[in-house]
Amino acid sequence: MIRITLPDGSVRAYEKGTTAMDVAKSISEGLARKVLAAEINGEVWDASRPINTDSNLKLLTWADTGGKSTFWHSSAHLLAEAVEAMYPGVKFWVGPAVDNGFYYDMDLGETRMSEEAFAALEKKMNELARQSNVYQRKELSKAEAIQYFTDKGDEYKLDLLQNLEDGNITFYTQGNFTDLCRGPHIPNTGFIKAIKLMSVAGAYWKGDEKNKQLTRVYGISFPAQKELDEYLAMLEEAKKRDHRKLGKELGIYTMDDDVGQGLPLWMPNGTIIIEELEKLAKETENAAGYKRVVTPHIAKESMYLTSGHLPYYADSMFPPMELDGTRYYLRAMNCPHHHKIFDAEQKSYKDLPYRIAEYGTCYRYEQSGELFGLMRVRCLHMNDAHIYCSKEQFASEFKAVNDMYLKYFKIFGIDKYVMRLSLHDPEKLGQKYVNEPKLWLETEALVREVLIANNIPFVEVKGEGAFYGPKIDVQIWSAIGREFTLATNQVDFSQGKSFKLSFTNQDNEAETPLIIHRAPLGTHERFIGFLLEHYAGKFPTWLAPLQVKILPISDKFIEYSKTILDKLKKADIRAEVDDRNEKIGKKIRDTELQKVPYMLVIGEKEVAEQKISVRLQGKGDAGAKEIDDFIKELTEEIKNRL
Amino acid sequence: MIRITLPDGSVRAYEKGTTAMDVAKSISEGLARKVLAAEINGEVWDASRPINTDSNLKLLTWADTGGKSTFWHSSAHLLAEAVEAMYPGVKFWVGPAVDNGFYYDMDLGETRMSEEAFAALEKKMNELARQSNVYQRKELSKAEAIQYFTDKGDEYKLDLLQNLEDGNITFYTQGNFTDLCRGPHIPNTGFIKAIKLMSVAGAYWKGDEKNKQLTRVYGISFPAQKELDEYLAMLEEAKKRDHRKLGKELGIYTMDDDVGQGLPLWMPNGTIIIEELEKLAKETENAAGYKRVVTPHIAKESMYLTSGHLPYYADSMFPPMELDGTRYYLRAMNCPHHHKIFDAEQKSYKDLPYRIAEYGTCYRYEQSGELFGLMRVRCLHMNDAHIYCSKEQFASEFKAVNDMYLKYFKIFGIDKYVMRLSLHDPEKLGQKYVNEPKLWLETEALVREVLIANNIPFVEVKGEGAFYGPKIDVQIWSAIGREFTLATNQVDFSQGKSFKLSFTNQDNEAETPLIIHRAPLGTHERFIGFLLEHYAGKFPTWLAPLQVKILPISDKFIEYSKTILDKLKKADIRAEVDDRNEKIGKKIRDTELQKVPYMLVIGEKEVAEQKISVRLQGKGDAGAKEIDDFIKELTEEIKNRL
Repeated sequence: MIRITLPDGSVRAYEKGTTAMDVAKSISEGLARKVLAAEINGEVWDASRPINTDSNLKLLTWADTGGKSTFWHSSAHLLAEAVEAMYPGVKFWVGPAVDNGFYYDMDLGETRMSEEAFAALEKKMNELARQSNVYQRKELSKAEAIQYFTDKGDEYKLDLLQNLEDGNITFYTQGNFTDLCRGPHIPNTGFIKAIKLMSVAGAYWKGDEKNKQLTRVYGISFPAQKELDEYLAMLEEAKKRDHRKLGKELGIYTMDDDVGQGLPLWMPNGTIIIEELEKLAKETENAAGYKRVVTPHIAKESMYLTSGHLPYYADSMFPPMELDGTRYYLRAMNCPHHHKIFDAEQKSYKDLPYRIAEYGTCYRYEQSGELFGLMRVRCLHMNDAHIYCSKEQFASEFKAVNDMYLKYFKIFGIDKYVMRLSLHDPEKLGQKYVNEPKLWLETEALVREVLIANNIPFVEVKGEGAFYGPKIDVQIWSAIGREFTLATNQVDFSQGKSFKLSFTNQDNEAETPLIIHRAPLGTHERFIGFLLEHYAGKFPTWLAPLQVKILPISDKFIEYSKTILDKLKKADIRAEVDDRNEKIGKKIRDTELQKVPYMLVIGEKEVAEQKISVRLQGKGDAGAKEIDDFIKELTEEIKNRL
Repeated sequence: MIRITLPDGSVRAYEKGTTAMDVAKSISEGLARKVLAAEINGEVWDASRPINTDSNLKLLTWADTGGKSTFWHSSAHLLAEAVEAMYPGVKFWVGPAVDNGFYYDMDLGETRMSEEAFAALEKKMNELARQSNVYQRKELSKAEAIQYFTDKGDEYKLDLLQNLEDGNITFYTQGNFTDLCRGPHIPNTGFIKAIKLMSVAGAYWKGDEKNKQLTRVYGISFPAQKELDEYLAMLEEAKKRDHRKLGKELGIYTMDDDVGQGLPLWMPNGTIIIEELEKLAKETENAAGYKRVVTPHIAKESMYLTSGHLPYYADSMFPPMELDGTRYYLRAMNCPHHHKIFDAEQKSYKDLPYRIAEYGTCYRYEQSGELFGLMRVRCLHMNDAHIYCSKEQFASEFKAVNDMYLKYFKIFGIDKYVMRLSLHDPEKLGQKYVNEPKLWLETEALVREVLIANNIPFVEVKGEGAFYGPKIDVQIWSAIGREFTLATNQVDFSQGKSFKLSFTNQDNEAETPLIIHRAPLGTHERFIGFLLEHYAGKFPTWLAPLQVKILPISDKFIEYSKTILDKLKKADIRAEVDDRNEKIGKKIRDTELQKVPYMLVIGEKEVAEQKISVRLQGKGDAGAKEIDDFIKELTEEIKNRL
């Protein structure tokens, strides 16, 4: 018998050679029907693979990232089976799962694949899926594997085999298709209930443009048709909400060839949003005891050698400028400058926690092919701050930072979020991670405790920490269910030492502070990109570039409209009069397109009664009001960021 | 007879060969006693030089820059005469007037001059001055001049003579000293009533470190002892108010070797001042109809080739960063980015004037030897904005900009200011200046008219305009009478064309806008440096980093002090409690050093009466008050920036 420990800590005994699927069935048949794969001692396995030793086991379903990626990887094999059936002689390179679905790279010889072929391919895939063919795993020797693909005349798989170690080679077969693959896979093709091929593109073999161009087919699949329908509807909605399209239509930002790729210029409307976000950040940080600083965008090479960003991070930085024999770098992060501020004046325990904030602008080099609207840029305005504290202060400071995240989520109506706690990998200490095994475990435990104590949803990911300490990446979902990585929150027990920072503790000894790096609102670029999609450009009043538009029905009412405008401006409300010589219907339509939250229609009746007629964006008439009442209500709405 | 036109436009007839001094005497003897030199048709002449043609004449006194520099240049000759008397065999290089006084470079052979020798030298200079020796001008041929200095064995003056044209050579003699000099000079040495030698330094011949090091003696002189006394007192006060000293003591900014020279890091207290200044700018610009933008700090080379900054301005820019085969430059000015914002959306006359503002950060290369505290830096946070307007709108826009300057001067208590209107030089059209002779004259006339119509004190300077149009440099004087160049205001009729900017005018034709570049608050660096001196670090309450310090007399009163603190914070007043276990006298002294405007002393009596005892910085006790009354008064003071 072997002992299987489940995630809730319960331990069950099973026969040696039992499978995750057996365990699932022993719990409930309903559960078993959902099991796609399993995590055995931290590694994802086929649910059908025999377990021979005491193990920790986590069943993976569609709800788990590991379950989903196994499902999509199996779908890639299903695609390959269908392609092989319809395009005899095709040869395959690799077919991984990606963030949204899967792809397979293939060599179709002289044949060209177009999207017109997708319907027939999808039909074939569905047919093969309905056969519920089992994904069978087979271990074999390198010699056998080479023999198989030599017989088949597949130079691509032979190339892959070159780099694999003997004793570590597996084939997977479903139906008529066999692939060299380390797995894992879902139990059978019957789990795949809905398939959509998305696009076809050229992809150089091994990503090298000197090599042959292969055909890459992208697809996505789901365990139910309903989920595919929802996904496609979400994509449709995302297209309408594309931040690049809305960003242009609403005058948020622009790009210019002479300025450079990935370097957005913020137009007046975008700048209003930036300033409102900074106001929110300053208010929040001020209340939380942060001080503000302003630091240069450049520094000498020596600073980044001290921080360790050079030479390791050089690829992500702009190249140096050489001046008077010294190399200056455009900064890719604000932390070293802030450390210098901490260090400029002698500190004692009474000065800690020392919290300094700056909407600091950084420049990072991204390959031009990676640049995408506001989402992947080369200039980043970051909601940055650094907290220097003692070990004893860490838990409460870290909790306060998390509370700040939650406060912001509430303001922006972000209901779904997960914190990804990225840990170190003990095998890479001294290479990817500062070689402080004890400190790593201590701080990781501290962070974990705070997350658990505060009931914050989180997942742990080994080997993705920053080089100076554990990192929390915050994943959020927009109103239409798209996932974004928003912001990070990092613990740093290393840079304090590198920069020789210290404070005098209560025992009158020099002590190195812990540092928390945090940026709850991420960068303006990414956050405003997210908000454009999240709100579909219909910003809440406090963020809306124009809050009120006054629409006189004819020229006669412009004068009264202007007295209304003056009152709104005195109350610090962003308002304009549409004094064009246009019909009221057109004025309303144009203002709707501009996505202004409030319209005030002014005609005979309004002037006679000295009132205003209020229209809500997207909702229509909201009746007549006294202007003073309207201003009072609106001021409350803006002040409370509703 | 010749006709002499005076600055007020009046014309008088004089004998041919009359001198400026004759003209002065014909007006009044009192005036004649003050005349140092004269401007004849725009050129500064000796007051004793015969005038032979109809001329425009302006008499120059100590109040004129030209009068002052003539006085100081003559003082340099007086210094040389004294040195020659006391150090026989000395040879002289050049001895110009500078911003504050004069210097003379000399070769003393083996002799070393130290400041200890100054007293004797000053005595000798005073003695020679009292002789009222006339500065005599003599024209002579190049051959005669060469003969003179060959006989004297003076290789320095012979070197100078090499580059002079025959027919254009003059000597000046006063007392026993004769110098090669193009003049002009004051009438006689008797005008120089007070002399102070300031310092001695080494200076390489012709500024080349491969050449011999000469001795440079700096001095200053005045037409009255009282003025010298005031000047020395001002220097003493300026030392106490040194912005570098105060900047450190008050935690305003810091510099760091790893960041780089000339790159200040703004500490929390400095950042509060920055944010208050930006708030003022935003309020003012918002009320004046400006929109705000945010643009990157870098751009591609192509942008600066279009603007014309490259290659002409390359020496003042940081070197390029080469990325993907393209050169990127750290920006030295914000204008090109703003032009791109103007150009991003189609404009019509209805959109003009289009005013966009940004506290834009620029980077400029200054030689490390030129760097000085916050005054000469490499990173500049500029109160920048650009106004795009039609020719018809120019005068009112330009007046509005000037009004904004005046509004700011009032807020900061700047009583003395002059606008230096820098014009083009017709001889350098096409080289230093855009080759648009007609546009130059037109816009210069427009600017001049606005300045005159609004009664703004200004002087005109030929040949100092920007390359794209006339420029106004604003000179201001601090509370202790030191002069600062604060800000510029430029008219630009060229970049609109270079960037192909246009708007559709009322005739439905494409028209190029005029552009006004303006920065009334200059850069944070220079302006805060100025304010530190101007206020001696005692900032008015609205700018003070800490506005109120609460001083409990003993620990018993800390609790009540904290309730006061809460009330102040709720009213957005920057306040702290001094809860140290120190005597009240020490707390008051420390708070005085911190230059906090208000101290609230809390003891037995204050708690019993539920009041506060107010102390004013530098002024002492101001009596007991209700806290609500105090908050009300202080809020008004801050809101009105008193």
